[in-house]
This record gives sequence, C-alpha cells and structure tokens, in this order.
Amino acid sequence: MEKKSVFIVFEGGEGSGKSTQAKLLAEYLSSENHPVLWTREPGGDSGICQDVRGILLNSEYKGKMSFRAELLLFEADRAQHIDRVIKPALEEGKIIICDRYEAATYAYQCAARKVCDTELFLEINGFAAGKLKPNFVFWIDIPPEIGLKRNADIKKSDRFEMEKVEFHQKVREGYKDYFEKIAPPDLWKKLNGELSVKELQRQIANTLKEKQLI
Amino acid sequence: MEKKSVFIVFEGGEGSGKSTQAKLLAEYLSSENHPVLWTREPGGDSGICQDVRGILLNSEYKGKMSFRAELLLFEADRAQHIDRVIKPALEEGKIIICDRYEAATYAYQCAARKVCDTELFLEINGFAAGKLKPNFVFWIDIPPEIGLKRNADIKKSDRFEMEKVEFHQKVREGYKDYFEKIAPPDLWKKLNGELSVKELQRQIANTLKEKQLI
Repeated sequence: MEKKSVFIVFEGGEGSGKSTQAKLLAEYLSSENHPVLWTREPGGDSGICQDVRGILLNSEYKGKMSFRAELLLFEADRAQHIDRVIKPALEEGKIIICDRYEAATYAYQCAARKVCDTELFLEINGFAAGKLKPNFVFWIDIPPEIGLKRNADIKKSDRFEMEKVEFHQKVREGYKDYFEKIAPPDLWKKLNGELSVKELQRQIANTLKEKQLI
Repeated sequence: MEKKSVFIVFEGGEGSGKSTQAKLLAEYLSSENHPVLWTREPGGDSGICQDVRGILLNSEYKGKMSFRAELLLFEADRAQHIDRVIKPALEEGKIIICDRYEAATYAYQCAARKVCDTELFLEINGFAAGKLKPNFVFWIDIPPEIGLKRNADIKKSDRFEMEKVEFHQKVREGYKDYFEKIAPPDLWKKLNGELSVKELQRQIANTLKEKQLI
C-alpha cells in the first residue's frame, strides 16, 4: 500500500511541551517505519531559514526589532520552508511533523503584538504559505506562568521568552482566537499541557489513529 | 529658518550609477551644511537590516531562495529601516538620501520574478512601508548590457548581478511600469544613465532646486 503524505503541526506557548511532543511523535512514527520529516518554524532549512531564525531569536535585538519586520521575517521563513522543505517532502509521501506554523504567527504577531488585523494577516500569510494547510494541528495549551517557569528552570531564554508574562497571556488568547475563529473546526485538537509527557503522547497517537492520519 | 525634512530616493538597475549619484548628492548637501542621512535598502541599519541584506545578496543562495521569501525579506528590511532609521531621521529634520526603495521591489520581485500581482504588492508593501512615500525619486535608466558590463569591469557580483541579461531587461521594464503606472506623476524623474557622472550630478541638483526640495 502506498503511503500518503501527511502534514501535522504542533502549536503552543513557551514551555508547553509542544517541541518535546513533536520530536517524540517523529521518533515513534520512524520506529513504526513511516517515512517521517521532523521540522520547525522558524529555521526549517539549513541555510536561509536558519539565518532568519538567528535574526528572530537573537536576544541582542530585544527592543530593537520593528514588529512589522518581525511578522515579515516569520512569513519569509515560512515561504522558504514550504517551497524548499515541506512541499518536496509531501511529494515524497512523507509524514511531516512541524513545530509551529501559522497559528503561532497569528498568536504572537497579530494578536499579542497587534501588528495587523486578521484580514491582512490572512492575506500576507496566504501569500507566504502558498495556501498550504496542515492536515491536523495539536494545540498544547498551558498557563504562561507554568510554561515560563519550565523554561526558566532549563535556562532557556530567547527574544520571545524574555517578554513579560502579560505578553504570553495575550499569546495564549491569540491561540484561542485562532483555533476558534480561523482554523477549520475538525482539523485541530486542544491538549492540556499540564498532563504528563506520556499521557500527552498517548492522546496524540490516539487522535491521529482515530483521524486515520497514521 | 527651520530645515524641513526631505526623503529622496535613487532607483535604477545594476550598474546604472544610482549608488554613485546618491553618495555624491549626500556629500554635496553635507558640504552645503544640510543635515543629511545617506542610507540604502537592503541593509539600512547596522543590525537587523544588515543581517537581512547578508541573506538577500549571498551568492551561495543563488537558485535556493523561494521568490516569495525573497520579496518578504526585502519588505522586512524596509519595515525595520523605516521604523528605526528613516522615521527618526525625518523627525530630526534631515534630508534622507536612500539608495533603492519600493520601486526596486516592484521591478525585481513583482515584475521580473512575477512573484505577485500589483494589487498584492501594494498591500504587502503598504504594510511594510507604513505608507511612507518619498518626496522625490530619481530613476537612472541604463540598458542592462551596459550596466552589467560596468559591474563586471569592477568585479561586482552578488546574487542579483549573477542573473542573466534577460532578467535585467525585465527589471528595466518593471521600473518603466512602476513609474508610469504607480508612482505619483510629479514626484519622479527619469535620467539617462549613459551621461557623465558630472552631467547627472548637475541634472539632479537642478531638479531638486526647481522642486524647492533643497
């Protein structure tokens, strides 16, 4: 039986555990002999996207980056990532596990930074993404104070993690807005980031099996 | 008498002499005791814009950059440049001399690369530029084969200069379209890039004096 390509995205605020779950799912699917590509935004190719990620997360640029430039850099990274990494992998029939995608741009730049309204976001993002939509999105939700404490405990601190808790509360509300108002209703699931790593793994695998995506 | 701020842009294809004229005008105005800022796109601030310029002109990325990513990187550079460099200088009452601005993005990405239509370009660029328009634009026009030969003679060769002459012919047509169809009619002038440096200098200074911009 020929394998069909699938595009799965993990979203969530800082310290939600989304990156851990994205990697664990990729490892699990590989161990089951699925052809898998784990990737992330920003920084999903080894050249241009990595360079853009370096600019976006550079803690020296805190307070120095125009919010419009920030949005446009994320969208530039997305366009490059889709054309050079995601589309070729989909054509090869792979399962793509992507750590962050357009919901993050909506939550961080559009909702929390208020850099543009929803209509303009959809237009710019639609151009950048070339209309490519994920087959399924997991939103791992966690109260910001808990997520930020997790990151502080492991001394993780980039330009976004350095923002105050009020900013991350707006990001969380932005994710809620995105999933309730913009995302197609059947193609996402909210998970509780306070559950154990194992329990989240179980819920993610079960959901994908139910949806017949794996 | 209080000095008013002025925003002057130089546009043109490779080897047109626009960078030379932009610098000569800045030097002339400085020598006349005008408060002047010479700047350029991409790369108009010492941090983020320089980083983005490094990505955009990197000859190692030839054939590897998504054209949509390229457009978005130019627009990210513009947003950063305007917020952090141009607007503060305008508020200080300076004369800003800028080497390339939005006409270049239209000519190279929209017209020559055909990455988006005019309407979407105006929307994305309007967002990036925050609607900031120059007071006057000089378009130094030159046949691409002459301009490219000038650059080859001085061994200048970035990712754009490496494109074939047919590409640069499309850029030239893109500039023509931009100035005839998009730019406000009284706020630009086409100059013949085959004239001597001195004659171009003379025409530029005379035009700005006639327009009472200097």
